[in-house]
Amino acid sequence: MSYHPPLRDMAFVLNDLLGAPAQLSALQAHADVDLDLMKQVLEEAGRFAAEVVAPINAGGDLEGCRFTDGEVQTPTGFANAYRQFCEAGWPALACASEYGGQGLPHLLNCALFEMLSAANHGWTMYPGLLHGAYACLSAHASDALKARYLEKIVSGEWLATMCLTEAHAGSDLGLLRTRAVKQGDDSYRLSGDKIFISGGEQDMTDNIVHLVLARLPDAPVGSKGLSLFLVPKFLPDGTRNQVHCTGIEHKMGIRGSATCSMHFENATGWLVGVEGRGLAAMFVMMNSARLHVGAQGLGIAEAAYQRALAYAHERTQSRAPVRTATTTAADAIVMHPAVQKLLMAQRCRIEGGRMLAYWSGLQLDLSEHDEDADQRHRHHDRLEFITPVIKAMLTDNGFQSASQALQVFGGHGYVTETGIDQYLRDARITMIYEGSNEIQAIDFLLRKALADGGRRMMDFLAMVEQDVGQIGDGEFAGQTQQLLQLTRYLAKTTHAIAAANVTTPQLPYFIAEEMLRLTGHAAMAWLWLKAARTAVQKHAADPLFYGSKRDSACYYFAFLFPETHQLCSVINACLAAGVPAIPSDLTHHDAA
Amino acid sequence: MSYHPPLRDMAFVLNDLLGAPAQLSALQAHADVDLDLMKQVLEEAGRFAAEVVAPINAGGDLEGCRFTDGEVQTPTGFANAYRQFCEAGWPALACASEYGGQGLPHLLNCALFEMLSAANHGWTMYPGLLHGAYACLSAHASDALKARYLEKIVSGEWLATMCLTEAHAGSDLGLLRTRAVKQGDDSYRLSGDKIFISGGEQDMTDNIVHLVLARLPDAPVGSKGLSLFLVPKFLPDGTRNQVHCTGIEHKMGIRGSATCSMHFENATGWLVGVEGRGLAAMFVMMNSARLHVGAQGLGIAEAAYQRALAYAHERTQSRAPVRTATTTAADAIVMHPAVQKLLMAQRCRIEGGRMLAYWSGLQLDLSEHDEDADQRHRHHDRLEFITPVIKAMLTDNGFQSASQALQVFGGHGYVTETGIDQYLRDARITMIYEGSNEIQAIDFLLRKALADGGRRMMDFLAMVEQDVGQIGDGEFAGQTQQLLQLTRYLAKTTHAIAAANVTTPQLPYFIAEEMLRLTGHAAMAWLWLKAARTAVQKHAADPLFYGSKRDSACYYFAFLFPETHQLCSVINACLAAGVPAIPSDLTHHDAA
Repeated sequence: MSYHPPLRDMAFVLNDLLGAPAQLSALQAHADVDLDLMKQVLEEAGRFAAEVVAPINAGGDLEGCRFTDGEVQTPTGFANAYRQFCEAGWPALACASEYGGQGLPHLLNCALFEMLSAANHGWTMYPGLLHGAYACLSAHASDALKARYLEKIVSGEWLATMCLTEAHAGSDLGLLRTRAVKQGDDSYRLSGDKIFISGGEQDMTDNIVHLVLARLPDAPVGSKGLSLFLVPKFLPDGTRNQVHCTGIEHKMGIRGSATCSMHFENATGWLVGVEGRGLAAMFVMMNSARLHVGAQGLGIAEAAYQRALAYAHERTQSRAPVRTATTTAADAIVMHPAVQKLLMAQRCRIEGGRMLAYWSGLQLDLSEHDEDADQRHRHHDRLEFITPVIKAMLTDNGFQSASQALQVFGGHGYVTETGIDQYLRDARITMIYEGSNEIQAIDFLLRKALADGGRRMMDFLAMVEQDVGQIGDGEFAGQTQQLLQLTRYLAKTTHAIAAANVTTPQLPYFIAEEMLRLTGHAAMAWLWLKAARTAVQKHAADPLFYGSKRDSACYYFAFLFPETHQLCSVINACLAAGVPAIPSDLTHHDAA
Repeated sequence: MSYHPPLRDMAFVLNDLLGAPAQLSALQAHADVDLDLMKQVLEEAGRFAAEVVAPINAGGDLEGCRFTDGEVQTPTGFANAYRQFCEAGWPALACASEYGGQGLPHLLNCALFEMLSAANHGWTMYPGLLHGAYACLSAHASDALKARYLEKIVSGEWLATMCLTEAHAGSDLGLLRTRAVKQGDDSYRLSGDKIFISGGEQDMTDNIVHLVLARLPDAPVGSKGLSLFLVPKFLPDGTRNQVHCTGIEHKMGIRGSATCSMHFENATGWLVGVEGRGLAAMFVMMNSARLHVGAQGLGIAEAAYQRALAYAHERTQSRAPVRTATTTAADAIVMHPAVQKLLMAQRCRIEGGRMLAYWSGLQLDLSEHDEDADQRHRHHDRLEFITPVIKAMLTDNGFQSASQALQVFGGHGYVTETGIDQYLRDARITMIYEGSNEIQAIDFLLRKALADGGRRMMDFLAMVEQDVGQIGDGEFAGQTQQLLQLTRYLAKTTHAIAAANVTTPQLPYFIAEEMLRLTGHAAMAWLWLKAARTAVQKHAADPLFYGSKRDSACYYFAFLFPETHQLCSVINACLAAGVPAIPSDLTHHDAA
């Protein structure tokens, strides 16, 4: 087994840090949830990830998918692992019991998918959209569609896809051309071509439920003219629908996942939601997907880190400046500061990312089930606010972490057989799909932080400041001050950007990425402070774990939090000097 | 053709910025060199790179090398391109005329290899060690060895390798076990196993000249016990020497380059230099190689950038905040600030890297041929000082640039056929080989900046400050102040680290990377200031080029130079708080 589920750290975040069992069991919907139940679910999930899914990870990368005459053959063992996944009931984990779900918290689903992505990101792409499809259909589909499809999705008997991208329409879905024409019987006929459809064809399930964005004949130009349709591979009467896979991509990574080109030729589909409101319906799926993508970045980084740490203990090379043994010619490289820095950077980003991801997962549960409507809205707002931060920051960090893990292996990491390069290659896609990280930054600054006059930003900062006030300063006075400086900077700067935006509307676009990462650091610094304080309080219960957690918190503030100085400096320069001059020969470059 | 040699920018750096033609022609050895000659060489080199080497880049990656019964078959077209390379006399470019070389400046060789790596990094690995082998042998080999091997290396008729690494000895060469036993006839017999030998076997040349580090039977433990040997594949009498390739690696990138495991079984070799001084002799080769690796990072980044820029002009998606045309549904993505930021980050790192690399190449020529011995030493010191900075910073930047180029392509960049992922994969090795970037940082801070009481650091800073003083402040007063703050910080901090080193010898290791990158920024900021001033002066001669250069300089200071604030903050935290506490469960982790 190459992956060890980080159950100890998960329990720390869920229980010690977030008090999730208490918060969840206070909700009527999760009254039965307690720490033991959560631990038990995570243990079983971890066992499944490590024992069933991880062993077919490297093979899936090597073998890839095969495409023959419209059919896709997934790598050896993938279909079998999926069958076991369904038999164990994992697709149903966080689905409502009325459709056969187990009704457990989203928070657990988030941790489940972190572990699955860590164990085998390519495989996890197949069930990866199940929950999003469930959420989208249960919120927007007609009762007839729900009755026909939801139970099959909840059980995992049928897998689902998200058919958005076309060759000329990626970040800009408003450009897409797939057409839908209404028929007399309330069905539609869809025609067009989609690309980059994960699991568009596969050999795991008897049917595939495609959720397709398309345009009605009289629809207005742009994204407002889009509608969402459910297009099954096989129609209810068992006949084959006219949606076919025309090829699969050869990719840098996630080679076990079939990335399909799909051709719709008068394929039969049914409207999901309202005509012209397809994007809104799809965004239910996208937002859930974006949280999951953040968890993917986290999971891949964790798996790569575990490999790097194990190697750093095995590999001996040179004498460390501080030595454990003086009789040997060389020390384990984990004793070398340069390697410790590589490992600690990975570790702080992973543990910080986990705290942030699980905090967000908890907001999702609270936003659905808090009995107080105002509280539900507040949790919903916080979740929406932080979603692009999690998607972009955890995936940027995940890729960087995987690269640092490879660096620990040196030349051996560059050799395919070691398997570490797969993490780097697999992680790279998470920065691109489900809205590129550049799109996330724009969404965050323009539509979250600046919209509503900065209300959600101020609510977030107030929450952090209030909680930090409760934490007090004591042992971590310096770090507390650093965080409070940052929250004050973010408040002031949000207003300054809003003001500059009036006269220079393009300015926010030049500092959107910086504002996103600054906010991410504010969130992580806040959670690291909480973690440090918790670790000090609980130290006696488990000195090795809590002492290490405290050291990691200090390391984060000394070595990673300083990125905030770079980010502030860029923002300040832009606010002072205005939009940067872009060289004329860049924008008027002759591309020929 | 997918690669356009950046001749215009090269001419700017060589002539406008560095005044290289005047500086070189003032040397007796290069009295004939003028701008026209330099331009002509670069034009021809660029044509060779673009027309002969670039077209077999993607194919080389796809096809890879084949290993059968000890023989290696390089990808289609590789051997033919190498034949043309030799026919055109490129291996001889910067070699002395007494061995058949053209005696041209190293600076041109640096630009040649930048272009070759840009065009096809895998292919360039084969001739990549020729010049280092030439430098090593001409400095250390006996006259007999020189007579037998140098002309063949200068002409490229025989390729060379560097056989250092063993499975258990990478960064720590002192651990290597290959043994050499002296024979009666002044030859030695070598036995042992080497790994990661680039071009250890190939089908391009009739003979291969291996330079091998090995240990004599009575040698002391560690790196002082190493000697260097020349071990040819075929002995002078034509018999096959007992050195054989036992396999090649499957790698993340540079798949066209054969990375060989080599077995030496009483292979015949001859000593290069003095017994026990092998590492010193090898370092002649390594230092030259490290400059070349920096140029590789630069070249790969340039090639990836060109592809990204062309795509950003082709691809239309969404409306930009500032629009060029209001009638279209979407603008070229090059008009979107997020894409401009990705492109400008690449561009500033590339153009800054080129200035730094060529400045260093010029130091190499001056260190060899300045008539004043003191000046030669001074140039040599400066080159030694900056070599690890160039190796580490240009390769870290190169990988990041390639990743940003891929990001411009979005999902299309993740698809193998687009070809952009090859740059990212190929670039990744440059951070590892020829001394990992962690080793470079330690070499820089411990053996360059802190050694000699910081003399070389102070000389470098004084040179920058003096030159910046001459530049004056005027239009770039703010940027000048930022640079001078940094040089003063580096001077002060070098002394502080030296002082802390006395009581806490492990402390420098924790901030070596930060000191290296800070010094790199000081060098680049200095050269960007010079470039900006030059661009303003020459603006009328070519407003598009010089105006763009000025804008790029400002962009560097606003968006990239701020990394220095992060680096300083890390260093300050370490100096204030001392060596960070590393969590016990990291160093005492049970790897099982």
